[in-house]
Amino acid sequence: MKTLILISHPQFEDSGTQQFLKTSFYSLDDVKYQVIDELYTATGTIDIEKEQNALRDFDRIVFQFPMYWYSSPASLKRFMDDVFTRNYIVAKRSLKTKELGIVVSLGDAEADFQAGGPEQFTISELLRPFQAFANKAGMTYLKPFVVNQFGYLDPAQKEKLLVDYLEYLSAEMPLSLANREQWLVARLQDTKADKSADLQQAIDLVINSIEDQQNNVESLKQDVKMIRDQEE
Amino acid sequence: MKTLILISHPQFEDSGTQQFLKTSFYSLDDVKYQVIDELYTATGTIDIEKEQNALRDFDRIVFQFPMYWYSSPASLKRFMDDVFTRNYIVAKRSLKTKELGIVVSLGDAEADFQAGGPEQFTISELLRPFQAFANKAGMTYLKPFVVNQFGYLDPAQKEKLLVDYLEYLSAEMPLSLANREQWLVARLQDTKADKSADLQQAIDLVINSIEDQQNNVESLKQDVKMIRDQEE
Repeated sequence: MKTLILISHPQFEDSGTQQFLKTSFYSLDDVKYQVIDELYTATGTIDIEKEQNALRDFDRIVFQFPMYWYSSPASLKRFMDDVFTRNYIVAKRSLKTKELGIVVSLGDAEADFQAGGPEQFTISELLRPFQAFANKAGMTYLKPFVVNQFGYLDPAQKEKLLVDYLEYLSAEMPLSLANREQWLVARLQDTKADKSADLQQAIDLVINSIEDQQNNVESLKQDVKMIRDQEE
Repeated sequence: MKTLILISHPQFEDSGTQQFLKTSFYSLDDVKYQVIDELYTATGTIDIEKEQNALRDFDRIVFQFPMYWYSSPASLKRFMDDVFTRNYIVAKRSLKTKELGIVVSLGDAEADFQAGGPEQFTISELLRPFQAFANKAGMTYLKPFVVNQFGYLDPAQKEKLLVDYLEYLSAEMPLSLANREQWLVARLQDTKADKSADLQQAIDLVINSIEDQQNNVESLKQDVKMIRDQEE
C-alpha cells in the first residue's frame, strides 16, 4: 500500500512536531511526503496537471497540518481549490476508492474540544469540511489522527506517538487487533535484513510469539462463537 | 452601526452573485466592503498592522464567500492566519463584542446539505470552524446568510434576496419583527431626502402605516400577556 503525506505548514522546517514526525516515516519505503507550501512558485502558481497526476499511484492520501483557527493552514485549502477541480474530483472521480487520512496537531488540549468545554466543538465536528470532501470524492474517510500538544509529551509518550503514527500511515484500516499485528510483523520482517544472525533470531522469536498469540486469539474467537451458537 | 464585508473570491469581478450583492449595498452609508484577495501584493505579502487597525471601527464583520470544498476559498483562511494573530485575538481580545456574520453562496442546492442527503452535513456543521473562531474571539456569531443557487433565482426571488441581504448587513440582530420594522422605517426615511414632495408624502404614509401596525402588535402583546397572567 502506498501513502502520500501532504503537509500544510508555513514553517515546516521550524516545527518540532513536524520534524519529529518526518524523521519517523523515513523508515517506511512506501510512504512519500510533500510539503504543499513548496509546490508553489514565489508568484503563487502551481502545476495543476502535474499535481493531479502525482496522486494517481497512492492508495492513501494523508493531509497533515497543525490546527490553525479550527482548520488547516491556508496552503492546504489553496491546494484543494487549485488542484481538486470539479472535473478532476466529481466528473472524473479521480480519487475514488482512495483513503483520506488527517493528521492534525493541536496547540490547545484535546480535552477542551467538546460541548461545554472552552473550544465548544469536537475535532470531528471541526474537520467536517474534510469529511464532506472525502464523501464527495468517493474516498474512504479515516478516523483522524490527533497529535495532542506535542511539546508536553515525555519520551515514552513520544515513542508511542511514533509507533501509532507509522501504523496510521501504513497499516490496513480499520486498526483492528489483527491488522495491527499483521503490520507489526511486516515491520519486524523489514528490520531483519541488515541485522546480525543473533538479532535476526531474536526478532524471529518475537514474530513467532506474536503469531502464536494471533492463533490463540483465533481459537478463543471460535470458542466464543460456539458458545453463542449453542445459546441461541 | 458600522459593517465591514470581507469578501473572499478569486474571481470577484466575474461572479454574477457577488456583483449583484455589490450593487445592492451601495445604498447603505455605514457598510464598507473589501475584497481580501486585493489586500495582498503579487508576492503574497499583506500589511498586518494596517488590516488589524482597519477592523477597529466596525461593529459587524461579515465574511462573504462562495462555498469551495465545504469552506471559504483559501484567501479568507490566509487572511485569518495572517491578520488574526493569537496576540490580536486572544491576548488583546481586539474583536471582542463585535458581531461575526457569514454570507455564503452555494452552487449545490441547500436542501442537499443534511444527514442522508448527498452532501451529508448541514451548512451549520460545515461552518463550525468560523463559529469556533467567533467563540474564541468573544464575538457574537450571527445566523449565517445563505445564498442558495443564485443562478436559478427569478426576478422576484432576487428582489427578496436583496432586501434580506441589506437587512443582514445593517439591521439590529436578532432579526425580530420589531428590529426588521425599525430597519425598514430607517431605510424609508433615508430614501425620502431627494424625492419630490408627492413621493415624500407617499413614503410618509407607508411609514405611518408600519408604525400603526407596530402599535397594534404591541397592544396585542399586552393582551396576550394579561391573559397568560390571569391563567397562572
